[in-house]
Amino acid sequence: MSRFTPKNPDFAARVRDSFDRQGAMKLIGAALVHVAPGEADIAVDYRQELSQQHGYFHGGIVGTIGDSAGGYAAFSLMPADASILTVEYKMNLLAPAAGSRLIARGRVVKPGRTLTIAHIDVFVLRDGTEHLCATLLQTLMAMAGRTDAPKD
Amino acid sequence: MSRFTPKNPDFAARVRDSFDRQGAMKLIGAALVHVAPGEADIAVDYRQELSQQHGYFHGGIVGTIGDSAGGYAAFSLMPADASILTVEYKMNLLAPAAGSRLIARGRVVKPGRTLTIAHIDVFVLRDGTEHLCATLLQTLMAMAGRTDAPKD
Amino acid sequence: MSRFTPKNPDFAARVRDSFDRQGAMKLIGAALVHVAPGEADIAVDYRQELSQQHGYFHGGIVGTIGDSAGGYAAFSLMPADASILTVEYKMNLLAPAAGSRLIARGRVVKPGRTLTIAHIDVFVLRDGTEHLCATLLQTLMAMAGRTDAPKD
Amino acid sequence: MSRFTPKNPDFAARVRDSFDRQGAMKLIGAALVHVAPGEADIAVDYRQELSQQHGYFHGGIVGTIGDSAGGYAAFSLMPADASILTVEYKMNLLAPAAGSRLIARGRVVKPGRTLTIAHIDVFVLRDGTEHLCATLLQTLMAMAGRTDAPKD
Repeated sequence: MSRFTPKNPDFAARVRDSFDRQGAMKLIGAALVHVAPGEADIAVDYRQELSQQHGYFHGGIVGTIGDSAGGYAAFSLMPADASILTVEYKMNLLAPAAGSRLIARGRVVKPGRTLTIAHIDVFVLRDGTEHLCATLLQTLMAMAGRTDAPKD
Repeated sequence: MSRFTPKNPDFAARVRDSFDRQGAMKLIGAALVHVAPGEADIAVDYRQELSQQHGYFHGGIVGTIGDSAGGYAAFSLMPADASILTVEYKMNLLAPAAGSRLIARGRVVKPGRTLTIAHIDVFVLRDGTEHLCATLLQTLMAMAGRTDAPKD
Repeated sequence: MSRFTPKNPDFAARVRDSFDRQGAMKLIGAALVHVAPGEADIAVDYRQELSQQHGYFHGGIVGTIGDSAGGYAAFSLMPADASILTVEYKMNLLAPAAGSRLIARGRVVKPGRTLTIAHIDVFVLRDGTEHLCATLLQTLMAMAGRTDAPKD
Repeated sequence: MSRFTPKNPDFAARVRDSFDRQGAMKLIGAALVHVAPGEADIAVDYRQELSQQHGYFHGGIVGTIGDSAGGYAAFSLMPADASILTVEYKMNLLAPAAGSRLIARGRVVKPGRTLTIAHIDVFVLRDGTEHLCATLLQTLMAMAGRTDAPKD
């Protein structure tokens, strides 16, 4: 049970549709694995192309799926005619992202008409267990009256 | 003229060597375009694979090269036997990253034996002009006695 | 039950002793109302001297007790000969701090030998209910071999 | 010469008037020592009541005047009928705030109709020289159609 009531009953389809238009998510091989009101999880499997110099997941990949998980958690609560922008986020890298799969779980802390605050935990799957490897605190802004379609 | 004196005279070669081992930088097509003591710039040209849902550079790409530019700026000041880790960063996205090329300029604000603080500005090239599109404030930690080689 | 085991069995006395030496806590009238391994809560009652221009608690007061609550949560897990420093924090102000009492609850997210990460929620008591008004994510550094006594 | 043009020709009087209504600034003895379009500096002299446990300026005091300096830098660019709120800030403490006077210099990085981003450097005066001791990156929101008067 989510703590939030979506303003748009079609929120899940809208989140998935927006996610599918992100070239960067395709490039890194990320998948949207959970959507609920105020919640979105994004996962990506390890491959060498996602590494930093020690062979673990690159911090940029951790930040990319963390940012997107928080963004889509917030987007799930937006009305049908609003778009969403990341204003800023802070990420603490807590442990090396060493493992076979990365999962970012974005959760809305406080929804708002203009600004929404989200918290994201990123876990790395290693030896069958999820280990917390990063945590983010993020501010997002709703853009009223803008559809989320790509510009033409 | 840099404000800092490197501890390792071979800092530039060491930075380039570490950069070349990052699979994620290859994947997104990023290049290290400037290294000096306490300074590193990373650039990436636009292609659709780096986009968010509106067709601009994805915020994750902005964060990825911003994080790396600050990291290598700090790494350039490390002694030859130390490695570097991103502890955390905060990024403000100031304007849509709409343009043909993204350039992150990382500069050390305060070097330290254990912690180094860096500031990074990210610019997007549009119509021949660089526009500031993001700014980061970052904390890095030196790992003494660890080479930067990938683990075997 | 705390999730952490303190390295110093006298951690609570040590936290209270350090808190009592902070002139700034006395000035604003803050009290340490809870200490456990990896946990510290600090509260302050409203008075006009703590206000911003609209008559609510000033954001600086929110940040001050938030920073200290996270710092003492981390300090509670330090060995007896180590001191602690705030490296950085990020605070999101979620709602006006309008009420009669402010309570910051600091919790360690990840303890470490050198760096500890803490999360702090700040609540304001209004009409008998605690309302979340701010959230912080904080990085702290242990200073080994330094007692926490004031310099002479 | 400021880089910005104020929307309200009476911006300086308005900033000073708002500052004078902040009980917390009086309590700590802070003074607004500079106002220009997109700029505000706040200073406070040392006394024991502003200390942390080692006798230096408390990080909460550093954050309080840093937050306010950025807030008033942004407020100076607001139209006459708008108020301003701190959305969030991140502060890195770079060196102990050991000295006789603390000066926070807030500068707008990017003004906006809804959101304004500010950067603040905090210096401590010691032995006649200003030393950088903290740096902040801050997000502020304009509240259109709200005067800055205290609520009655």
